[in-house]
Amino acid sequence: MNDIKKYMEDLGIKARKSATVLATATTAMKNDALEKMALTLEAHASELMEENQKDLKQGKANGLDEALLDRLAFNEQRIAGMIEGIRQVAGLPDPIGEIGEMSYRPSGIQVGKMRVPLGVVGIIYESRPNVTADAAALCLKSGNAAILRGGSEAINSNKAVAQCIQEGLKAAGLPTEVVQVVETTDRAAVGELIQMPKYVDVIIPRGGKGLIERVSNEARVPVIKHLDGICHVYIDERADADKAVAIADNAKTHRYGVCNAMETLLVHQEIARQVLPRLGDIYDSKGVEMRGCNATRAILGDRINTATEEDWDTEYLAPILSIKIVKDMDEALDHIRKHSSQHTEAIVTEDYSRARRFLAEVDSSSVMVNASTRFADGFEYGLGAEIGISTDKFHVRGPVGLEGLTSQKFIVLGDGHIRS
Amino acid sequence: MNDIKKYMEDLGIKARKSATVLATATTAMKNDALEKMALTLEAHASELMEENQKDLKQGKANGLDEALLDRLAFNEQRIAGMIEGIRQVAGLPDPIGEIGEMSYRPSGIQVGKMRVPLGVVGIIYESRPNVTADAAALCLKSGNAAILRGGSEAINSNKAVAQCIQEGLKAAGLPTEVVQVVETTDRAAVGELIQMPKYVDVIIPRGGKGLIERVSNEARVPVIKHLDGICHVYIDERADADKAVAIADNAKTHRYGVCNAMETLLVHQEIARQVLPRLGDIYDSKGVEMRGCNATRAILGDRINTATEEDWDTEYLAPILSIKIVKDMDEALDHIRKHSSQHTEAIVTEDYSRARRFLAEVDSSSVMVNASTRFADGFEYGLGAEIGISTDKFHVRGPVGLEGLTSQKFIVLGDGHIRS
Repeated sequence: MNDIKKYMEDLGIKARKSATVLATATTAMKNDALEKMALTLEAHASELMEENQKDLKQGKANGLDEALLDRLAFNEQRIAGMIEGIRQVAGLPDPIGEIGEMSYRPSGIQVGKMRVPLGVVGIIYESRPNVTADAAALCLKSGNAAILRGGSEAINSNKAVAQCIQEGLKAAGLPTEVVQVVETTDRAAVGELIQMPKYVDVIIPRGGKGLIERVSNEARVPVIKHLDGICHVYIDERADADKAVAIADNAKTHRYGVCNAMETLLVHQEIARQVLPRLGDIYDSKGVEMRGCNATRAILGDRINTATEEDWDTEYLAPILSIKIVKDMDEALDHIRKHSSQHTEAIVTEDYSRARRFLAEVDSSSVMVNASTRFADGFEYGLGAEIGISTDKFHVRGPVGLEGLTSQKFIVLGDGHIRS
Repeated sequence: MNDIKKYMEDLGIKARKSATVLATATTAMKNDALEKMALTLEAHASELMEENQKDLKQGKANGLDEALLDRLAFNEQRIAGMIEGIRQVAGLPDPIGEIGEMSYRPSGIQVGKMRVPLGVVGIIYESRPNVTADAAALCLKSGNAAILRGGSEAINSNKAVAQCIQEGLKAAGLPTEVVQVVETTDRAAVGELIQMPKYVDVIIPRGGKGLIERVSNEARVPVIKHLDGICHVYIDERADADKAVAIADNAKTHRYGVCNAMETLLVHQEIARQVLPRLGDIYDSKGVEMRGCNATRAILGDRINTATEEDWDTEYLAPILSIKIVKDMDEALDHIRKHSSQHTEAIVTEDYSRARRFLAEVDSSSVMVNASTRFADGFEYGLGAEIGISTDKFHVRGPVGLEGLTSQKFIVLGDGHIRS
């Protein structure tokens, strides 16, 4: 245990030191490092496959299920995708050093803000070894040193990727400690990483709910996290029925296992008979299990199940949908307030005042009018990349891009100004 | 102990509930409540004085020192100042609901951000009862419910102010639970307040270093805090000597007991003989004790003391100044990196590249060129008000105005858009 503490502190000290160098690296240097990381990964693709094979073999021996083994596996296409991701990050605008809001004050000083890195970012993730490259690239571009802690089942793959990354950093003249992978699989390492505020400025857990809850509960460092995605679509009385059907279809069936998929559909009683039979047919044809309130079942009949209280609080991440008919918009807002995980909610309506009210009153990280919840995504929002999603309000909310890994300092320009 | 837990939870539940109402209150309603709070305080000025007398009497009996008693005392002028402060907050622009950065994406959706309150703000402060009104006004205007925990020595004054505030809220038709004062002086209440993430979204401690350290160490809720203000002024070789002298004078002597006062002066060796004798005379005439490195003493002579290693890490908050002569800008930056508390640093120079380098490399919440560190202040920066100063990087950095008490959610406007 003491050794782990010492080992993690050592990573922390190196990360903190290298972060100071990285913070003032030019855009050109950072982009050069990213390109050299990409080239090194390309050159070592076969070694990556070999190391990955070790993990897969071990995983099979340990009885990992097929889905986990699939997430763990490298192939040519996935390695190419990982490399392409790094080059895309190189192409993004550099947020660091960006100066904004400069204005003159009555005293004569000119005040504004300059964007700076947070410092050291700790990322804790599971199985997918491509996250190692992805997270490293985003941290590097935003001027932050990274300490990466992947799943123990991917340890050989992660170390191999990290080695390529560090070679790239070295070739570009940056300290290799800018990106460090935790090389022990001891779980105590996570405990240390999230309790070193002296060396780590923010933790981003990427993985299942269990991991995220553990990290949030035990961290002594700020955490950017998202727990559930219990997203709602509310079809208002004054919705355009065609738009409503298209959106409710897309929000549920475009992809099932994602946090921005709709889990509960709320329908105004005055439009229910118009849209629910059409939607029922679509969901049926796509094999979506429906669980409805009594009023919904009165329309859709026995082919759908009865929703229990528990359903309203469940993130299915599966082809299951709960449906509730509400008597008015107040009831819809009330249901959302009670059951939403504050991730993403959408209203479908042609009514100006109701759209405006929904935008103002719904307290979720993304609030939409006449659009599918599936749009809640860093790429769709134009952030260029996404290192995570925050359902918190502190520091950053919703999809987190490079800017979420930065802070702003005040800068003041004077000409000998003193305070009187 | 269990009663305190129950009591604080009860405050938390009420705060959370009222925050939902307040979040969608119009600007007019909030301003009306502020004006009614001001009017009620005006009408009850004599009761405020009476309650304050109880605290002063108790404080004297408990042997509080003169400085503390002075901070605790109300008088007509201070009550008027408190009321004027509330009216100033009413005059500030409402940050809530502000929509920005709306842009169209290739998919056709329009994406932007809307500013929203954080929710419930807990404020922990010492002796000065005017903070009760000040903090309440800022939280209200930014749409946040407030739980205020003042010092036990000001309990009667704080309760009296809170009563006026709640009358004002009631008169304006807002829930009185929007602003609650903790009415027990049991210290366990602080422990509870900072460990209720379910009910409290952020804690702002305002007081001495001891309070802030305790709160930061024990909180399970994000904390907006500033610890030390060890601020530096670096007089570069290429400084204009007159500006340098004016700034180094003002940064130290304008006010001593404030966090943005200079504590260490760094002087380039090539300009030391030009500026230090002038500054030495000024500091001497104002009774500022100087503690210098050997090189400084070689210029200023025995009238100044020798600085120890400890001096470089000390926030004097007093007419004391440490002075160091550096051989170049690198040494100055290095000294700042090692000893600054990352609050505010300033360079005095006429050199373009050095000014630019200082702005980029110094990692403090305020970085200045040719201006006194005393400008690091919410009012001077045009924030309109200041609820605190953050020396952290997460969420907010530097002086914190209304915006620091808010978050932003994404809003998406579509016309039936679905993701393909």
